[in-house]
Amino acid sequence: MDVRAAVAFEAGKPLSIETVQLAGPKAGEVLIEMKATGICHTDKFTLSGADPEGIFPAILGHEGAGVVVEVGPGVKSLKPGDHVIPLYTPECRECKSCTSHKTNLCTSIRATQGQGLMPDGTSRFSLDGQPIYHYMGCSTFANYTVMPEIAVAKIREDAPFDKVCYIGCGVTTGIGAVLFTAKVEAGANVVVFGLGGIGLNVIQGAKMVGANKIIGVDLNPERETMARQFGMTHFVNPSEVEGDLVAHLVELTDGGADYSFECIGNVEVMRQALECCHRGWGVSTIVGVAGAGQEISTRPFQLVTGRRWQGTAFGGARGRTDVPRIVDWYMDNRIQIDPMITHLLTLDQINEGFDLMTRGESIRSVVVF
Amino acid sequence: MDVRAAVAFEAGKPLSIETVQLAGPKAGEVLIEMKATGICHTDKFTLSGADPEGIFPAILGHEGAGVVVEVGPGVKSLKPGDHVIPLYTPECRECKSCTSHKTNLCTSIRATQGQGLMPDGTSRFSLDGQPIYHYMGCSTFANYTVMPEIAVAKIREDAPFDKVCYIGCGVTTGIGAVLFTAKVEAGANVVVFGLGGIGLNVIQGAKMVGANKIIGVDLNPERETMARQFGMTHFVNPSEVEGDLVAHLVELTDGGADYSFECIGNVEVMRQALECCHRGWGVSTIVGVAGAGQEISTRPFQLVTGRRWQGTAFGGARGRTDVPRIVDWYMDNRIQIDPMITHLLTLDQINEGFDLMTRGESIRSVVVF
Repeated sequence: MDVRAAVAFEAGKPLSIETVQLAGPKAGEVLIEMKATGICHTDKFTLSGADPEGIFPAILGHEGAGVVVEVGPGVKSLKPGDHVIPLYTPECRECKSCTSHKTNLCTSIRATQGQGLMPDGTSRFSLDGQPIYHYMGCSTFANYTVMPEIAVAKIREDAPFDKVCYIGCGVTTGIGAVLFTAKVEAGANVVVFGLGGIGLNVIQGAKMVGANKIIGVDLNPERETMARQFGMTHFVNPSEVEGDLVAHLVELTDGGADYSFECIGNVEVMRQALECCHRGWGVSTIVGVAGAGQEISTRPFQLVTGRRWQGTAFGGARGRTDVPRIVDWYMDNRIQIDPMITHLLTLDQINEGFDLMTRGESIRSVVVF
Repeated sequence: MDVRAAVAFEAGKPLSIETVQLAGPKAGEVLIEMKATGICHTDKFTLSGADPEGIFPAILGHEGAGVVVEVGPGVKSLKPGDHVIPLYTPECRECKSCTSHKTNLCTSIRATQGQGLMPDGTSRFSLDGQPIYHYMGCSTFANYTVMPEIAVAKIREDAPFDKVCYIGCGVTTGIGAVLFTAKVEAGANVVVFGLGGIGLNVIQGAKMVGANKIIGVDLNPERETMARQFGMTHFVNPSEVEGDLVAHLVELTDGGADYSFECIGNVEVMRQALECCHRGWGVSTIVGVAGAGQEISTRPFQLVTGRRWQGTAFGGARGRTDVPRIVDWYMDNRIQIDPMITHLLTLDQINEGFDLMTRGESIRSVVVF
């Protein structure tokens, strides 16, 4: 079938709106009509060429919401008409990772997904007979896509696509980092580095679980107002701190953060996030993605005296299990999404969404098909 | 009173056996007759001058066992005749750290202990009227010492001093790292880097909790036999591995270690210990103490994909609560200590104990008073 898609032909170039061909779902796969998709920093990271695993030509996008229109042979958990969110982290419930019950990083289709292919080792997308690669197993920058059944979360039908698409990545990554990875408890003091789309969701996750002080750190003073709306109790602009930022944060938290989160992808900030944690028990969680080859470092004394360093991917959420719950939380007004969707675009305007992100003017731009 | 002690007058020089003066216990303090003391790498580290917090002249030693002979005003939990193990990590049960129930790193007397002084800011030891400093709050290289009540673990009276003194540091550090810090569970695969006095205790801790593969890594092939006696199932000599050590360990553990432990103090090995952990859930615990100013580093991707990096001090054990239990485990033959006590010395021979350690000939030398 013919599909309208934003194609990334090569790194560093704008996306190109094309009519491409999409083959139907094979066994264990479903065809999804995309209704909306967010534009995430990870898409930009890959498009820029900085992602060492980036493959071109590809259809980017991994933060969508839509409706199942056709299912391939053997698909049991989904049927046409189901409202769904595509998952770049699948949940097969059968592999070593899933059955460990210790991680959300399902490995069942990791090899082919990393190659831009479906589990059978081929692509469903093509243009003029030449294959176009899938991206993060999703390719939501197209009005139709094909996904493996295990990488699709079924959600309630009254949830608005142009809001809950954000649960496909940013919301779940931020809230999940708090709830599923760090398991922040009520009364804890939390420090959040970076108040963009992920950081704001970390903040509302911390508020949701009853954290005490929720301290946001950002160089951009314009982030303060919205962060306070999401639950931030203290704002720290490093450029206005006299002396050492870590010492300032330790003082502000009466000994250090119980939990800190790095939501930027800056390895120097990752170190600060660890070192501002409380001696004895502070846990620092890396959410941001650093550039290729960059390294974090610290004195081992920081760990020997009780701080712990960890990371999270997709907020530790198990997609098919947790994403529908997070949609419920949104529909029950337990979390906010609407204020973070700062821009609505058509597919034709998608490159403007990347520009808004580059200029720091958007929290999240959403393309509505 | 007159006391026989091994005094460290300056860094890099042998200890000097002297008769020094010891003042009696003040309020909240007890006088202990030392019966035996181990010689630990940390004593050697400080004596060498590499410890930036080392203070001289001091009476070193922190791994002792003895008998209470006198108690100061207000002491309630101890009485003359009690058998005890001095604790370099106290347990006041009242400070923010103790009441957090999240760490063993009691902070109640940290400031003075770090200065080589008793909690009132003075030393009990002197020579010719000049103060001699305490060390790690213990100073077990003397036949009598004074300790704060909160830094003394009361143990059963049938436990042999020349064995259970080792529980004052090495045994508890190694076994505790497994039980209290990492909380290794039955069936886990464990990799232990460094098969000295700490590593052997990590191994017997892993065996105690029912670990599956217990892989020991050491450049010294002579460590293999004893490590197997303590429960090691596989021995890896990095000098005999073709190719990358981390890849070899990942293969040996079918995807990576569930838990790894660094028991050397080498920052490069700390990185290997982290990176040999299983994607998604592997936890690496730093037990060894690195040299001043050295740093650990890795790619944040290692953490974002689910590995966790942490450390332990005194094995996460709460001294007054856990040390008596570990003594019980030894007396009930649930753990071994005797094979690790390779040399018994008199106080006059204490410098020989340091030499044995330097030459790698001892696991533990114990001075019996």
